[in-house]
Formats: sequence, structure tokens, C-alpha cells
Amino acid sequence: MSNLTINAKRLWDTLTETAAIGATSDGGIARLTLSDEDRQVRDWLRVQVEALGCTLTVDAVGNMFALRPGRNPDLKPIAFGSHLDTQPTGGRFDGVLGVLAGLEVLRTLDGAAYVTEAPLLLVNWTNEEGARFAPAMLGSGVYAGIYAGDWAEAREDAAGTCFGAALDAIGYRGVAAPGSVPFGAMFELHIEQGPILEAQGATIGVVQGVQGMRWYEVTLEGQSAHTGSTPMAMRRNALLGAARLVEAVDAAAHAHAPDAVGTVGHLCVTPNSHNVIPGHVFLTVDLRHPDDAVLDAMEAAMSEVLDSIASDLSLASQLRPIARTAPVAFDLDCIASVRRAADKGGHATRDIVSGAGHDAAHLAGLVPTTMVFVPSAGGLSHNPAESTTPSECAAGAQVLLDAVLDYDSRTSSSAA
Amino acid sequence: MSNLTINAKRLWDTLTETAAIGATSDGGIARLTLSDEDRQVRDWLRVQVEALGCTLTVDAVGNMFALRPGRNPDLKPIAFGSHLDTQPTGGRFDGVLGVLAGLEVLRTLDGAAYVTEAPLLLVNWTNEEGARFAPAMLGSGVYAGIYAGDWAEAREDAAGTCFGAALDAIGYRGVAAPGSVPFGAMFELHIEQGPILEAQGATIGVVQGVQGMRWYEVTLEGQSAHTGSTPMAMRRNALLGAARLVEAVDAAAHAHAPDAVGTVGHLCVTPNSHNVIPGHVFLTVDLRHPDDAVLDAMEAAMSEVLDSIASDLSLASQLRPIARTAPVAFDLDCIASVRRAADKGGHATRDIVSGAGHDAAHLAGLVPTTMVFVPSAGGLSHNPAESTTPSECAAGAQVLLDAVLDYDSRTSSSAA
Repeated sequence: MSNLTINAKRLWDTLTETAAIGATSDGGIARLTLSDEDRQVRDWLRVQVEALGCTLTVDAVGNMFALRPGRNPDLKPIAFGSHLDTQPTGGRFDGVLGVLAGLEVLRTLDGAAYVTEAPLLLVNWTNEEGARFAPAMLGSGVYAGIYAGDWAEAREDAAGTCFGAALDAIGYRGVAAPGSVPFGAMFELHIEQGPILEAQGATIGVVQGVQGMRWYEVTLEGQSAHTGSTPMAMRRNALLGAARLVEAVDAAAHAHAPDAVGTVGHLCVTPNSHNVIPGHVFLTVDLRHPDDAVLDAMEAAMSEVLDSIASDLSLASQLRPIARTAPVAFDLDCIASVRRAADKGGHATRDIVSGAGHDAAHLAGLVPTTMVFVPSAGGLSHNPAESTTPSECAAGAQVLLDAVLDYDSRTSSSAA
Repeated sequence: MSNLTINAKRLWDTLTETAAIGATSDGGIARLTLSDEDRQVRDWLRVQVEALGCTLTVDAVGNMFALRPGRNPDLKPIAFGSHLDTQPTGGRFDGVLGVLAGLEVLRTLDGAAYVTEAPLLLVNWTNEEGARFAPAMLGSGVYAGIYAGDWAEAREDAAGTCFGAALDAIGYRGVAAPGSVPFGAMFELHIEQGPILEAQGATIGVVQGVQGMRWYEVTLEGQSAHTGSTPMAMRRNALLGAARLVEAVDAAAHAHAPDAVGTVGHLCVTPNSHNVIPGHVFLTVDLRHPDDAVLDAMEAAMSEVLDSIASDLSLASQLRPIARTAPVAFDLDCIASVRRAADKGGHATRDIVSGAGHDAAHLAGLVPTTMVFVPSAGGLSHNPAESTTPSECAAGAQVLLDAVLDYDSRTSSSAA
């Protein structure tokens, strides 16, 4: 490992400078994917990486790849990066930190005229957030062959604009076929978006993988009726059933503590009037755990409880799985490089499994991949108040640099 | 009691004829108070009662009073009626039956040239539904002195039109001061709007009074956070708290079975997104019981449970009472007249307490008052599918006629 040190002030200044692109009055960023603000920050990034002598490639879904040559052109590049798009009420760090810390890595190497064995590749993935075009992580998903390019191109935003037209509108439909820009490993620095590191006083999260996730839609159908004139014994109250399911989802997660989480995040009541017994409830369930077998057990428990709720309350119920991602285990060599880098910096670390989805989860099926987390104050994310301190950002960038150099030295020597 | 018989076919034809005013394609009626449809049905009613030789008075809030003279002009009129306005998705019977059955009573007496001792007074109350202008039962509330006329006049609909301007627009702002049109008793025929009569095979509900009602707004405030990256032990889930309160409100009603009812009808989650733990929930609670002491106990139980929910889940909570009506006990003499009338007709009866609010509840504080209920198929109301059979409507109208004549004969003789 080298003794190169990233420039913490330059990194923070860069975070501050780019936060002006799409800045909101409350200190956050609204930079929806493929918007004019996204174009501005992409144009800015292009100038920065070209100033460092990197070669920029844009693929057909707008993913940006800045290549810095290494000593050995036969080695596949080591990639790092994240995404520059944000939620409509986004903060300054989600995704952005991973790209700008990657830029800081390139600048640090450039300043020291340091040449790695393998080439390096800074990546800005398109539409990680999914806030304008569903699904999230679309650019990395197409890169990884999970989604077809044609299918991605046809995704529409709420205004009816399709993803392909939006790419054209900002001039970021490249000619490279997605997946044709090769790399041999991926490191993604990201904020935790959760409260664990802060609560445990750790600066660096050594990410072991990504939880498996299952989403469901549930409908409960009873009978709308007058709240005053319908005796309790003659009711078919869909909201009472929903309340019991909310409790059951919570219990299913607690039954698999501490790693399982389970949430009803969205719930709509019909007709939703003071004096009408709810006849219909629609809700969503989100279950996550690092182990698919546990998710199977949680799903079975929830389904059984739902059946008994419906039977007890004379409701009709439907449980529909709508999304499912398998748990991801990150590469042990990549993880070891991150751990050594964190130890070198003397940082308090904690092994952690990502609860949120990330581009890295798509790439882990293709190449050795891992992530580095830094704390999110109060666990807040997708929020203008999202906050990570300058020293935490610097620690993350330094660990990213050192992990990449560690990985480079070990893989190039084993390849030699 | 006389042997007069109402004309069941004429009543049904009249229900059908007037249902065309504001008819909806699904068989219901949309006849919001003081709309042009309301004007049409009021104009129609005016023609009908004047054809019977009645004198129509309209008061300053649009309440319509059709006076049929009696033998003894010193006796206060015996009033009956209900309301002709409907919900935006209303049915054909709620309120309408009470007015049109009252008209049928006048027509039957007219056909037989029958003269009562006391004058009779058919009333159409303005804005019973409260669907366009809150609160409900506004016309009878002003009549009873519960609301000031000026205050009523300033109520605004969703379009910003005030009640007074709407009265002027349809030409139904009368000159009589509300409350200046006297009557000595009130009988209101209405559909049950609940399932009890149908379930028990009763045709006539002998209404004993109206449940006391208390409405509350509750807010639960936790912390919105990522569903994937926030461990169960670090959550402040407002929806979990709300679910527990929904269950507690249900339990509080069951604890005072069979008369108590308790409902959360309205519930809104913020931010209401699949992958965000709900940080905020707003909901309403509706508690009803014929006894204020029981309502006190239910309120205390709910409040205590809410405090412990909030404490267990680290939520902030607020419980705000927003409306409260005391239980109403109807007049025993009026009730006795209804019971005799129902017995004379050989109808299966059931004593019942109204769960819904009615104009009669306002008037019960002024004059001897009661109500007659007929069944609602499936308990449905405020719904185009609201249904009461022709023979049930006829039974209700006949009981109304006989109860009024019974009351007339007893009160005029006791007054004599």
C-alpha cells in the first residue's frame, strides 16, 4: 500500500461546488436522472476527468466511464464510482460521494504521478435512484445484462417521456454497447443511509453484501358501512385487518432479529372518511434479510397470518409479490482490501450488510465487487438533511484509494 | 286511531319521480344542498303541498314548512319530515323517504278530507347531509338555536361559495326567522342506514334516541427512515403505533358490547412510500354509545393506550377532540305513539338507538320528538345501492300517519 493521502479539503470543496447543480433552498439537491441538472453535472465531470488525462466513454444508456491507464494494459481495469443523480428531495451525499471520492482518488494519483498496475475506471451509473424512471439501478442493471437496453429505453417518466428520449435530450446516449466497457473489479463508496455506524461509533462500514429484498402488495376487502349504525359484530373492517398485518410484519422481522427488517411503508384506506368503516385497504410490505431461507420463512409466516386475519374478520385478501432481489455476498478479496485499508487508517470499523440496494449489487454477479460505507447522521437519507462530516467523507475516500491500490498490488502480482 | 290507509303505489311513484332530479347513472341521486337539483326538488315540493291547500313558509336558512290547518288553531302543529338533499353519491331513500312519506300523509288526509285536531307541518330541513357545507344538520341546528344564522350563512363549500350566497342563488332564502315557525312535536321517518332491522327481520324500528358521538383527530410522529438500512430496534414507526391504536379503538368498543361502536375511518400515512418507514400518521377516531358515562370510559381507555403506545415506540402523539354530541333520549309519548302505530299495522318491530345523527336529534331538545326507522338492505347507505323495498317504505309511511294521528288524538284530548 502506498503512502498517498487524498486531499480532504479538495474533496469537500468539490462536494460543495457540485451541490450547487440542482441545489434546493433547504440545502439538498434535486437532480433527477437525465434532467438538465444531470447534464450539467455530467458535463462538469467530463471536464474534470479529461483534465486528468482520462479517456471518457459513454455507453448507450448514459453510463460514464473515465479510464486512467495503468502500467499493464492487459489487466482489466479496477472500477470505482457510484451515481450523480438524486431523489427529488435528495441530499448531498447519496451516490455523489462515491463518484466525487473516486474523482479525488484520480486527482491524488495524478498529483503524485502514481501509475497503478491495472488501469483504473471511474464510473457514473445512470438512474440509480429510479425516482424519474423505474426501476432503480437501471444503468448498472443494463450493464450487468439484467435488463435489456431496448426495455430500458422504453421506460417512461410521469410526464410520458421515455428514457431513450431523455438520453438524447441531454446528449448522453453514447455509442458503446452497455457491458462492452470492461473492468475486473468494482469498489463503491457510499453513505450508509442507516443509523448503525453512527450508533456504534464506527467511521468505516466494511460491507459484506446486500440484503435480499422482497416486496409485496396486499389488498384487504371488507364492507364500507356507517360507523354509527353498524354494530361491532356485523362489521367487515378492512383497516382492522390491515392493522393486524402491520403488527404481524413487525413481529416477523423481530422473530429473525437482529438482521431481518420488515415494514409496511405505504397504506391507503378507501373511502377514508371519518364516519365510514373502511371497506378497502391497499398496502405494501417490504421484507429484507441476508439469507433467502429466512426470507422464505418470513413470507410464509406473513401469508399464514394474513389468511387467519382475513378469516377472523370476514375479509377477502390478496398477497402479490411484486419485486424480489436475492441476497448478494460481496467478494472476499475485495472485502479484505477494504479491511486492510481501513486498518491502515486506524478507523473504527464495523462489518455491515447493506439494507439498501446499490449498483454494486448488480455488478457483484459479474466481477469481484464490494462497498465501503461511511456514516449517515441520524441514519437520514433521501432527505435534504442527509449529512456526513468532512472527516468522514475524507476517511471514506482514503479507504477507497487504499483499497484500490491494495487490490491492484495483490491482483497484479498474482497475475504476474 | 283512524282507519286511513296510505297509497303505497303513489308513494313509490313519487319516490321514483323525484329520484330523477339529480339522478346518477348508477341508480342513485346526487342532489347536493342548495344546488340547482335541490332547487328543482324544492320547487316540485312547493307545487305539491300548495296543491293540497297547505301554506308554505321558508325560513332564512331555507328550511321549508308546509302547514295544513287543524281543527284547533290554538294547538301547536305536529311536525314531520326529513331532508331532500343527498350525498354526492347518495341513494334514493336517505332523508327523501321521510319528506315524501310526509307528503303521502298529507295526500292521504286530503283524499279523505280528514281534519286533525292540531295543525300538521311537513318540514324539509336544509343541508342535513353536510356534504357541501359543513356541519351536517345545519338547517335544523339553526332552527334549534344550536348554530347562529350569521355563522351558518358564512359556511363555505369547497369552491368558496358561502351558504348564504347559495341560498340566494336558488331563491330559497326566506324571510321567516329560523325558529319562528312553531311546532309542538316532531316525527321523523328515516331509513336505518344500518343492518340491524334486516338482520332481525323487523320492519319498523322504534327509535329510542340517538347515540352520543365523539370524534377525535390523532397524530403520531416518529421518524421516516429507510426500510432496508434501519434495524428494527432503532425504528420509530408511526404506522405501527397507528395499527395498535386501530386495534385499541376496536377493543374499547367491544369492551362495552353490544351498544358501543368505535372506528378509525380515516388514516393517512406520510411519506407513504414502499421503502420508507412511516414517520407520521394522521387518523380519526369515532366513538358512539347511548350513555355519556360509557363514552367517558372509552375515551379514557383510548387515551391511556395511546400514551403507552407512544411510550413503547418512542413516538410523539396528540389526541384532539374535534366534535362531540351528547346522547339524545326521545320523548316517551312520541315513542308510545309509534309503537301503537306499528302494532296496529302488525309489523315486527325492534327498539333501536340511532347510530347516525339526524335532524330529529337537534329538535329533541326543543319539543317532544322521535323517529321511525325502516330497514336498509345490507345496512348500505350514502351509496347508490341504498335500498328499501316498496312495502317497507309503505309500512314506514303508514306508521308515520298512524303515529301522528295517535299523538294528535292524545295530546289534543289531554289539552282539552
